[in-house]
Amino acid sequence: MNRSIILNILGWILTVEAALMILPCIVAAIYNEKSGYYFLLVMGICFVVGMPLLFYKPKSKLFFSKEGFVSVALGWIILSIMGSLPFYISGEIPSFIDALFETISGFTTTGSSILTDVEALSKCMIFWRSFTHWIGGMGILVFILAIMPMTGGEGMHILRAESPGPSISKLTPRLKTTALTLYLIYLGMTVLQVILLLIGRMPLFDALTITLGTAGTGGFAIKNSNMADYSTYNQFIVGLFMFLFGVNFNIYYLMLFRKFKIAFKSEELRTYCLIVLSSIILIAFNLGGLKNFFGYLHEAAFQVSSIITTTGYATVDFNYWPTFSKSILVIIMFIGACAGSTCGSMKVSRIIILFKALGKELSFLKHKRSVKILKFDGSKIDHEVMRSTNVFFVTYIFIFAISVLLVSLDNLDFTSTFTAVAATLNNIGPGLDLVGPMGNFSSFSDLSKLVMMFDMLAGRLEIFPMLLLFTPSTWRK
Amino acid sequence: MNRSIILNILGWILTVEAALMILPCIVAAIYNEKSGYYFLLVMGICFVVGMPLLFYKPKSKLFFSKEGFVSVALGWIILSIMGSLPFYISGEIPSFIDALFETISGFTTTGSSILTDVEALSKCMIFWRSFTHWIGGMGILVFILAIMPMTGGEGMHILRAESPGPSISKLTPRLKTTALTLYLIYLGMTVLQVILLLIGRMPLFDALTITLGTAGTGGFAIKNSNMADYSTYNQFIVGLFMFLFGVNFNIYYLMLFRKFKIAFKSEELRTYCLIVLSSIILIAFNLGGLKNFFGYLHEAAFQVSSIITTTGYATVDFNYWPTFSKSILVIIMFIGACAGSTCGSMKVSRIIILFKALGKELSFLKHKRSVKILKFDGSKIDHEVMRSTNVFFVTYIFIFAISVLLVSLDNLDFTSTFTAVAATLNNIGPGLDLVGPMGNFSSFSDLSKLVMMFDMLAGRLEIFPMLLLFTPSTWRK
Repeated sequence: MNRSIILNILGWILTVEAALMILPCIVAAIYNEKSGYYFLLVMGICFVVGMPLLFYKPKSKLFFSKEGFVSVALGWIILSIMGSLPFYISGEIPSFIDALFETISGFTTTGSSILTDVEALSKCMIFWRSFTHWIGGMGILVFILAIMPMTGGEGMHILRAESPGPSISKLTPRLKTTALTLYLIYLGMTVLQVILLLIGRMPLFDALTITLGTAGTGGFAIKNSNMADYSTYNQFIVGLFMFLFGVNFNIYYLMLFRKFKIAFKSEELRTYCLIVLSSIILIAFNLGGLKNFFGYLHEAAFQVSSIITTTGYATVDFNYWPTFSKSILVIIMFIGACAGSTCGSMKVSRIIILFKALGKELSFLKHKRSVKILKFDGSKIDHEVMRSTNVFFVTYIFIFAISVLLVSLDNLDFTSTFTAVAATLNNIGPGLDLVGPMGNFSSFSDLSKLVMMFDMLAGRLEIFPMLLLFTPSTWRK
Repeated sequence: MNRSIILNILGWILTVEAALMILPCIVAAIYNEKSGYYFLLVMGICFVVGMPLLFYKPKSKLFFSKEGFVSVALGWIILSIMGSLPFYISGEIPSFIDALFETISGFTTTGSSILTDVEALSKCMIFWRSFTHWIGGMGILVFILAIMPMTGGEGMHILRAESPGPSISKLTPRLKTTALTLYLIYLGMTVLQVILLLIGRMPLFDALTITLGTAGTGGFAIKNSNMADYSTYNQFIVGLFMFLFGVNFNIYYLMLFRKFKIAFKSEELRTYCLIVLSSIILIAFNLGGLKNFFGYLHEAAFQVSSIITTTGYATVDFNYWPTFSKSILVIIMFIGACAGSTCGSMKVSRIIILFKALGKELSFLKHKRSVKILKFDGSKIDHEVMRSTNVFFVTYIFIFAISVLLVSLDNLDFTSTFTAVAATLNNIGPGLDLVGPMGNFSSFSDLSKLVMMFDMLAGRLEIFPMLLLFTPSTWRK
């Protein structure tokens, strides 16, 4: 293990985080809030700890996938601890566990909250809370890649560890250019959404924070009523952008360079649209029947778009929906949107690969000698990707089961327990019953909150970095 | 597809089923019940349809795994339809769907019941209902293998399709001898349990029917109070034998030939014992705390033994247990007992293989070039077994999700819906809430019952035979 280079990367993370905290300071200045000083204090801490590490010379340039996974996992933990300090030191979230839960929920773009009254927070805290979604959505280490003076193989290993999805396609030969282009698309779409919301007469602060939560597919509500009180137009814009942020960013990249044919040929994109559309139609039918189908279309579309992209905003309390609609939501919770987007959960491409593997197995059972080559978007699915997708799925379910077991020690009802774990592991936010869209996570014990913090990080980093971090052999010389 | 040989096998199944119906006729004669005539009638139908098929000469001897899967799947469906006729024709279960549900639940050793009052059935019907568990437990086609004059490769393909578990180890070179020996062990243990229950002063009829349900790990209760009213000694015997019938029968085979060393070296056996023991301890602690730990040991042991072996008897209503204990039950529902036993669900060996694959993936991620060979009981896990285990798990979860979706159309609560599907797909019997150990499946619609019938068959036959049956390409020339 090359510890010195990992320390160096952690130094970068702290420095960047300190720089990012300038924004909540500006918000504090505008609203004349004292809480801004706490951000200045934490910025100081980040600089004091982080700066020396920047000038620390790594002894060796060796950087393998193990180092990639460990630096990503450790990086996210340190990012979250530092990010939680303003909430905790200011006393706006009095318990450290709660503050950390809220911050991890922010950076992992989960959006589960322990707050019973969001509106009681000061503006700069609300802004920082939503801003963590935006930072976490694209992945902070990818951002650092774009600005960090790195020499060699680190980039690919970090990108592989931090990016969601079964495989990575290098869009441009130079990694830095890729990272920068992706961030520019991300920024561009964010600005566009803010403008469209302002046109809908949403106040600037709301438009900004809600957009940050949409772009990162995080979903921290800034009102106790969640999104219910906004106009239908604004709800529509948010719903539409949740859907758009669930698309693989490679598609936008291709469209930017006018390669529309390749872009629209994407199997994942088509399947994603198909799942979204059929879920909306089924739910609207279930809610309104043939008669009121169109009346419930908007409501169904917003919620489906919110859950499949693992954002978690809500315009209605779907706790009161019939069981069929709730079951659809629970299932698309586990599917998630496209790989290479800001979303959590399993990802559509993994589901496609797993279905193809099933087809292969069936034809293999029929004719022992049949050899069928699996293809995805026209090219052969690598044997390695296949196996790791299978293992990923299995591990996902294992972690899910163990977490349900631990959280059930709190003796809350089965549905709340089950969906709370589903909502955190899949980085969605709300579940059903107690943790429904109008509820929150405050009723859980500290142990359960710790378990769910692990789940949120495991979900965001796609499990293996977190597992490797806690495997003793990783640390053996 | 060699249809003629499949028809021939179906003929055997009908004839054997007719022969097996002699037993309920005897019961009817003893208790002087008119319902016995219905069994005679159905026996007649079976003979009339089945006998001609026996003398039907297959045109070709070609028999591949496809034929094996199809004859097993079709065989079980026909077995169930014929088995349900006595319930339906006699009017003791007035709806055909309900009668079929009950019979499939019997043969697949699930034990889910649609009856609100079991004790209202006549004795011969109760006997037949429990007897279906015993027949289904070991697999009827394996039994036919043992008596049928077959020529060649059919045996292995049928055994593979009908036997539970990721791989089959041929115990003796000759397949017929294996099948016969396994049936003798099964019969011997059944007789032993009946004797032990009779010693505990259980009435003969109860001892017989309860033992049939234990041996097949089925779990149809013959009292409305399930097993609650029996003495602690009798509950203990049933609990013990449920555990024993969950052990891989190969182990008993090895012990019979005094190969104790190899028997006790079995990784699956050890893991199975470990899971059972730790579940019992955790639940007893959860129920009684440190103070009443021992007081709840019996209760915990019975229920764990019942659920992990997918039997489904209950001495208490675990609906009222705390959520942690309920979560343990739900998790061991999905684990199941050993491969090569009469149990349903995933099987311990599959879980072990999946965990090993996870370990391999982790070490692969750390060092791209590392090659780790997976071993199970000392010998290398075949690549094919590995892949098919992964695909099996994934398919299991897919079928589970789709079933939950369809059953949720009934708009019952989420926990009932979720656990009803879990209980049928894993061949357990009871779930939680409405379908808890003291509840039943009568509140579901016919559609849901059909879905759960499919699940029970898919669970018992380990999914692929049922999927192949409904794949159009299986039937194409």
